[in-house]
Amino acid sequence: MKSEITFASGLHVFGSTADRYVLSGYKPKVPVSEMIKTASKVEDLQGVELVETWHINQDNADEILADIKSAGLKLSMLLPDLWASAKWGMGTFTSNKEKIRQEAADTTKRVMDLAAQAGCNIIDVWLGQDGYDYPFQADYIQAWEWTVEVLRDCADYNKNVTIGIEYKLKEPRTHCFIGTIGKLLLLIDKVKRNNLGIILDIGHALEGYENMAESAALSKYFGDRLIYLHLNDNWRSWDDDMMVGSVHTIELLELLYWLERIEFKGWYSLDIFPYRDDSVGVASESIQWIKDLRRVMFHIGLNRIEEVVASRDAAKASKLIREGMFSLPSQS
Amino acid sequence: MKSEITFASGLHVFGSTADRYVLSGYKPKVPVSEMIKTASKVEDLQGVELVETWHINQDNADEILADIKSAGLKLSMLLPDLWASAKWGMGTFTSNKEKIRQEAADTTKRVMDLAAQAGCNIIDVWLGQDGYDYPFQADYIQAWEWTVEVLRDCADYNKNVTIGIEYKLKEPRTHCFIGTIGKLLLLIDKVKRNNLGIILDIGHALEGYENMAESAALSKYFGDRLIYLHLNDNWRSWDDDMMVGSVHTIELLELLYWLERIEFKGWYSLDIFPYRDDSVGVASESIQWIKDLRRVMFHIGLNRIEEVVASRDAAKASKLIREGMFSLPSQS
Amino acid sequence: MKSEITFASGLHVFGSTADRYVLSGYKPKVPVSEMIKTASKVEDLQGVELVETWHINQDNADEILADIKSAGLKLSMLLPDLWASAKWGMGTFTSNKEKIRQEAADTTKRVMDLAAQAGCNIIDVWLGQDGYDYPFQADYIQAWEWTVEVLRDCADYNKNVTIGIEYKLKEPRTHCFIGTIGKLLLLIDKVKRNNLGIILDIGHALEGYENMAESAALSKYFGDRLIYLHLNDNWRSWDDDMMVGSVHTIELLELLYWLERIEFKGWYSLDIFPYRDDSVGVASESIQWIKDLRRVMFHIGLNRIEEVVASRDAAKASKLIREGMFSLPSQS
Amino acid sequence: MKSEITFASGLHVFGSTADRYVLSGYKPKVPVSEMIKTASKVEDLQGVELVETWHINQDNADEILADIKSAGLKLSMLLPDLWASAKWGMGTFTSNKEKIRQEAADTTKRVMDLAAQAGCNIIDVWLGQDGYDYPFQADYIQAWEWTVEVLRDCADYNKNVTIGIEYKLKEPRTHCFIGTIGKLLLLIDKVKRNNLGIILDIGHALEGYENMAESAALSKYFGDRLIYLHLNDNWRSWDDDMMVGSVHTIELLELLYWLERIEFKGWYSLDIFPYRDDSVGVASESIQWIKDLRRVMFHIGLNRIEEVVASRDAAKASKLIREGMFSLPSQS
Repeated sequence: MKSEITFASGLHVFGSTADRYVLSGYKPKVPVSEMIKTASKVEDLQGVELVETWHINQDNADEILADIKSAGLKLSMLLPDLWASAKWGMGTFTSNKEKIRQEAADTTKRVMDLAAQAGCNIIDVWLGQDGYDYPFQADYIQAWEWTVEVLRDCADYNKNVTIGIEYKLKEPRTHCFIGTIGKLLLLIDKVKRNNLGIILDIGHALEGYENMAESAALSKYFGDRLIYLHLNDNWRSWDDDMMVGSVHTIELLELLYWLERIEFKGWYSLDIFPYRDDSVGVASESIQWIKDLRRVMFHIGLNRIEEVVASRDAAKASKLIREGMFSLPSQS
Repeated sequence: MKSEITFASGLHVFGSTADRYVLSGYKPKVPVSEMIKTASKVEDLQGVELVETWHINQDNADEILADIKSAGLKLSMLLPDLWASAKWGMGTFTSNKEKIRQEAADTTKRVMDLAAQAGCNIIDVWLGQDGYDYPFQADYIQAWEWTVEVLRDCADYNKNVTIGIEYKLKEPRTHCFIGTIGKLLLLIDKVKRNNLGIILDIGHALEGYENMAESAALSKYFGDRLIYLHLNDNWRSWDDDMMVGSVHTIELLELLYWLERIEFKGWYSLDIFPYRDDSVGVASESIQWIKDLRRVMFHIGLNRIEEVVASRDAAKASKLIREGMFSLPSQS
Repeated sequence: MKSEITFASGLHVFGSTADRYVLSGYKPKVPVSEMIKTASKVEDLQGVELVETWHINQDNADEILADIKSAGLKLSMLLPDLWASAKWGMGTFTSNKEKIRQEAADTTKRVMDLAAQAGCNIIDVWLGQDGYDYPFQADYIQAWEWTVEVLRDCADYNKNVTIGIEYKLKEPRTHCFIGTIGKLLLLIDKVKRNNLGIILDIGHALEGYENMAESAALSKYFGDRLIYLHLNDNWRSWDDDMMVGSVHTIELLELLYWLERIEFKGWYSLDIFPYRDDSVGVASESIQWIKDLRRVMFHIGLNRIEEVVASRDAAKASKLIREGMFSLPSQS
Repeated sequence: MKSEITFASGLHVFGSTADRYVLSGYKPKVPVSEMIKTASKVEDLQGVELVETWHINQDNADEILADIKSAGLKLSMLLPDLWASAKWGMGTFTSNKEKIRQEAADTTKRVMDLAAQAGCNIIDVWLGQDGYDYPFQADYIQAWEWTVEVLRDCADYNKNVTIGIEYKLKEPRTHCFIGTIGKLLLLIDKVKRNNLGIILDIGHALEGYENMAESAALSKYFGDRLIYLHLNDNWRSWDDDMMVGSVHTIELLELLYWLERIEFKGWYSLDIFPYRDDSVGVASESIQWIKDLRRVMFHIGLNRIEEVVASRDAAKASKLIREGMFSLPSQS
């Protein structure tokens, strides 16, 4: 049977997207309520994820949640800002200043509260500022010790909220401590708390020469920890945050197949940066690529894919995929 | 109107493929006549390219050409060995030994003679050993001077044979002098001979973060020099020489579109290394991917593609390509 | 004899450095006059380069130039903003809107006027927004035609000002048209104007798997066009804009050697982004690495380096460099 | 106090080095006894590591071990061939043929016996053929299950022999299952046997955008598992197996510092491929770079390095390293 999947998007997709050259953004700034309305125009989109401080906080939460509801959407997840303020520049959980580590823990807990209150019960801890830029700039062991310590503290704070952790090889630091699927699985194993999960950003996987499907499969093998997806595409050497499906067609199909196989039930959420592009257009396309590739997958049949994978015959697998892709029955 | 295209393959595809670990090859060694027979089993394959010394030489040329003919194939191109013998280790056209440079020129001319005699009239000069491995190991200016000198000498030797030049960023040297489309176009411009052309290996383009379509387009803009294609696929950071279409679907489609637009008329030739794979299977799949993507291209229509490219609207282009790809009419 | 070299720096090094996450910058904003004062604290720094609109314009030029002078510095170069405004998002010289191409030309000419008036006589045209992000998003041939056309127009506007052109593989676009040393040399050859030069950003070379020394040497071989250096360092796959010498020691030494050999006389200018670092500290270190490596170079002797390069013996070259580096006489 | 370190080398360094183009090798083939004699010419080299079948087997072991001894060397380690025979092409521990998995286990145990008999007590299990080349070519979960199973079986076979495991991102497969430090640490944690260790090939770390020092530090943090080093250098995107110190000077110094800090006591062994180079020359240079950089390290002082690392001040760290490097007292 076909599983149902649900699509969300980061709200930033519908904002003014900026980079280090055009700091005021390639598009005009708009209020959050406007961004939510724009999001609601994307076909098949059912949820939005928000960043605390950028989009939502204790004061405006009721209003924003009402906006989301009236736009016909749900809140899929909340992100504490641990990477968008100058104070985090030299790290959050791994800052060598105890005060900063404490502030990062407090920020995380505050967003856990908000997630509990809003009912989404998932937050995304992405430690993008925790790493180093230069040789001789980090005590690697100390960094892990602090990360473990702060994560345990936060996880114990509210066991009903799941802390998703997102790994990334680099950027904004040239090297992030929790940079690969292997390191994140090690971290979760070390912290030993049930309310920790993996948020797989497939662009981060691609950037690190990982195979997205393999990273998803390993998250199953090591404790079934995958809880949420961040979807985008890139050219493999940087987190370009492009439209899903725009470059890596076959690997995306393989990921979709493995997500079925490991029975992933979480949100398929867009994390793209449409600097110069029509945001509704690229968000819609991202979803349609996934839906079309899922049609290809079910048209071929999960069992036949499983058989050809087990055979390890590259030519046979190619033929199966290619013929399935180019013989798709028209949609009624 | 649809153009007709013709497919060739390097004969090595059907041999014992070896790498630096399994030097005796992943498959049993077979005689050249056997490889030609195997090649003839690949659907839609019309030509084979051969390496002098490995596959053909003055002594056995009549016999080999007869084998090719009786297999229903044509000789598409000849390659002088300028990269498979220990004597070339420190370079051929750029060796700092005059004797070696002379021997490389003689080898090239000898294969030009063979190409003229066999009627294919194209050879492939790939200067894979001409480069450097370490800092402080090359006089970059001298290397270019020698390359220009030897190429002029060879080009003048027989103006009826076209010397195709193939660029590659690295391997077997960690850096090759003629490493990018830009450098090759500069070289051709400097040498100033009409019988020089570009052999675009799309895997070499991908390895160098080039866009295959853009490299083909530039070869048109700078003197319309594209004469022959080497087709394969890879994971972007190395010349993996994989089955065509196995990784980069959309970019391959864009290349096929630009090949139409620049009215490329040469061979579409496979340069893959099926170390562990069924060689007929992966060669066939390579061709079928190209044929299917060409069906997609003509189904969408070249004019509609041209329009969407001119609009520079990424979402619109995605929609056009995606809908075209997944609404392909069944083949009768 | 040892050549004298002169160091400059981009003024942005001393400002609030921002990235796409911390858009307000990792450091407080300061006025231009303050940045100039900070720059003057860097030992051995003699010049600064400024971006029009960010740092200088027709209205404040006299004041800013006076500030530079009173800080004991010179103006080394001016950059038109062709990459920091939302209006340039889809390109400048290659925009498909004639109005934008015209505005880009006008901007360039306006900064040429300013450069003439200020006496530096060099501007830096970096076409970072001219490229594409997605497949099927650019007409590669048209883009080159427009680039050639606008460059000719600008070059002819004032032959006493040299237009330096800076190439970069990617960022802010995922692919820039003028992305490699090869492509830039082709462009200059096509435009055919004497007042065009190359601004070599060594981080851009590294990002594109170029060898910095080789790129400098080729700029000599093809018309002796190198006029200015942008210095920084990175981890090879992205333009990290780090402190010079922080990662690539030996290759930097090789570059310094080739700069002597090709008799480069221009500014050695820093283009680093010290997001989280002491700006005076990293600028000073950048200069001191270059000075120390030049001491190593002269301690070994240019002739001995030339000999070992000509020998192509990697072990001998290593020994020469290593022993030179670790036997440096103490400075008096 | 300065620690003493001991240098070894793979014996293949002194053989005929081949790649996929020059399959017969860039140098003449020589008998093993000759290679051992050549190795003994490398200053400061004390050990050699050998590959079973290539260099040593049950029949010639006594003779080879005598040759090593009479050359004044020791056997540092043994490697089972799990990657140099066509039969392993589709995997060893993860082959989908039970017979092959059994043969791989038997091979491993046979070399464990030889290691016990020869007294080195360490073997290197590098699973280079265990991975995949294409999408849809591997059951990632099954592969890990089999790897765990076979490793447990081998580890239990003889608890007095340590099985070192070497990770590598790619080559000969385009993707290897045990590809990163994170994945290897996960594997060791899963297998749960005391006689498992990590063999860190620093070129493999570089190839995967790892920081060598960080990978060493993590191997300490997760169970103190580092037992042996494979040393070389490369250009970051491929396992070029170059002379140590030829490209990455500062990072190598940082690694040497962390090896002291984690009190690493194993062999510093060369794994370089001097295709075109004087093998004794590049092996000697590799060792001398390490010795000179260790001189720099002790000249600066471990405590001062530790302090500057803890400060996270990139400019200060640069100054400390740079001044230490260029003020080295002459050796008496």
